[in-house]
Amino acid sequence: MSEQVVLLAHGSGGLLSHELVSSLFLKYLGNPILNALEDASNLPLGDASELLGGQLVFTTDSYVVKPLFFPGGDIGKLAICGTVNDLAMRGAVPLYLSAGFILEEGLPLRDLERVLVSMATTAEAAGVRIVAGDTKVVERGSVDKLFINTAGLGLVPPGVRISATAARPGDLILLSGAIGDHGLAIMTQREGLRFQTPLQSDCAPLNSLVSAMLAASRRIHTLRDPTRGGLASALNEIATQSAVGMEIEEQAVPIHEPVRAAGDLLGLDPFYVANEGKLIAIVEREDAQAILEAMRAHPYGQEAAIIGQVTAEHPGRVVLRTILGTRRLMDMLAGEQLPRIC
Amino acid sequence: MSEQVVLLAHGSGGLLSHELVSSLFLKYLGNPILNALEDASNLPLGDASELLGGQLVFTTDSYVVKPLFFPGGDIGKLAICGTVNDLAMRGAVPLYLSAGFILEEGLPLRDLERVLVSMATTAEAAGVRIVAGDTKVVERGSVDKLFINTAGLGLVPPGVRISATAARPGDLILLSGAIGDHGLAIMTQREGLRFQTPLQSDCAPLNSLVSAMLAASRRIHTLRDPTRGGLASALNEIATQSAVGMEIEEQAVPIHEPVRAAGDLLGLDPFYVANEGKLIAIVEREDAQAILEAMRAHPYGQEAAIIGQVTAEHPGRVVLRTILGTRRLMDMLAGEQLPRIC
Repeated sequence: MSEQVVLLAHGSGGLLSHELVSSLFLKYLGNPILNALEDASNLPLGDASELLGGQLVFTTDSYVVKPLFFPGGDIGKLAICGTVNDLAMRGAVPLYLSAGFILEEGLPLRDLERVLVSMATTAEAAGVRIVAGDTKVVERGSVDKLFINTAGLGLVPPGVRISATAARPGDLILLSGAIGDHGLAIMTQREGLRFQTPLQSDCAPLNSLVSAMLAASRRIHTLRDPTRGGLASALNEIATQSAVGMEIEEQAVPIHEPVRAAGDLLGLDPFYVANEGKLIAIVEREDAQAILEAMRAHPYGQEAAIIGQVTAEHPGRVVLRTILGTRRLMDMLAGEQLPRIC
Repeated sequence: MSEQVVLLAHGSGGLLSHELVSSLFLKYLGNPILNALEDASNLPLGDASELLGGQLVFTTDSYVVKPLFFPGGDIGKLAICGTVNDLAMRGAVPLYLSAGFILEEGLPLRDLERVLVSMATTAEAAGVRIVAGDTKVVERGSVDKLFINTAGLGLVPPGVRISATAARPGDLILLSGAIGDHGLAIMTQREGLRFQTPLQSDCAPLNSLVSAMLAASRRIHTLRDPTRGGLASALNEIATQSAVGMEIEEQAVPIHEPVRAAGDLLGLDPFYVANEGKLIAIVEREDAQAILEAMRAHPYGQEAAIIGQVTAEHPGRVVLRTILGTRRLMDMLAGEQLPRIC
């Protein structure tokens, strides 16, 4: 296996496709639903009363990160976490994922295997199952090694109403930890830079953090994971969708020192760099402290902080109060900063 | 717009990403669910009693067809039909699709627009809505123009139990029409061949055909659309999954004359060539005639035929009775025949 590579015939729909599915995909990702190999998979949705009171949510993301393997993660871990997190940002319990692979002819099968092991481990940790899959193989040069798409289904518990449109003036803005680690870990790896303290991606499934937060209070109005475009773009999106203003305290936003240093070196502002294991929570002011404590008690929220507040003034705009005490508009990312970061 | 191309910044998560989403994606694919632009979309599932009696099914497929535009379709039409058909092959009513786009830097926006128009038209015809989306842009040379993933959710009506494991000895095997049109239309286009009668892909959403068949009889045991690997591979899959044998009458299988001619020229056997608008139905013998009539009365089943039967003998194997009267084993596709056919 270790010397073998992906062949065009692995995507033919014939014998070799079936071999690849059984020797690799089902070996690592298999479960009774996926193993049935139906054109479309049955989805048991558990207790009907739970379903009727809840709300199904659905999301999709493609992953094209380069390189495939990076400090703190790989494309497989990312493909699970990214989609689990999109479900979690609605307060949903992630249930089922699909996985679509596009492989380049010549990709070493051991690389594919390593990605599948990572997907299996991460899916297990997040409590989701991959129940539908597809593999395409394209000729050398038509794709860069391996792209993955995952779509996900989750169930929002009754009474949870979390939306990018639900931030309200007076709400406090929480951030679950330090920003910029993912993007700068990828960029330093790509540029071949070495630091004394190596940068690690923060890539993580956030659904258990969200559950812990919801256990502390149901008055969480908005959640969003600041991926592409970073914290600044995600806050701007919420400000626009909720038609509110925001004021952010620059010094309250945690940034790890090596990230700041790498950002300075590469000319990248951590406020605009992708994160894959952080969330923004906009919550009822009264409950903010309880939610913050729940976050800090969770492994993925230890550095959580209150970073600002929602205002009725300047709807659609995010204002940063800088460390120097000045105020400036913090815009959405303009132009392109980091291609193939996720 | 017509002179513009996809830029890396269109995938940044910043301003240009938002512009692309609103000026193109929402313009053509928009609906209240998608327009909400939440991290994960709410899925209304209609009447609760219907849901409780039915069964949700889920599927995914990536589309990497080359060229993007071909006689009878394009990658957008294919991305809707392929996933709708996977749902329909379980007897499901297709409800919701996600769509993930991977774009090459430099792709003309007018090509993307043409694909989106096609997706919108096909989704409308199939009665499905695209409710979740994602776009990634990769640098020139890292993907060949445009790949699409669609995942789909459907609801199987109460009482319908269709599975690749459910074929039984004595059942009759129906085919909804002529085989090989899609694969040979793509190949002749790719090779620049011209025929007097141009070949057209059969790409079509088959859910309404399946509904018509189910209205004629619920005793449909197995449905499968013979895509990659063709009719021969799909029959072998069912024979294996149901642990039954099959006998197919070669002369009963409809093949259009230009397809046969192109297959001869290119050395491609239509039995192994992909279809995108055909289905195999394995049904209770008594009801076969009624189902066949329902198929022939439908625009996508006019050339439907009974092509063979399921046997208890030689489980897992498909035997072809040739036009010459001889019998031979019809294997699954070995090796690779047509890369990037879907």
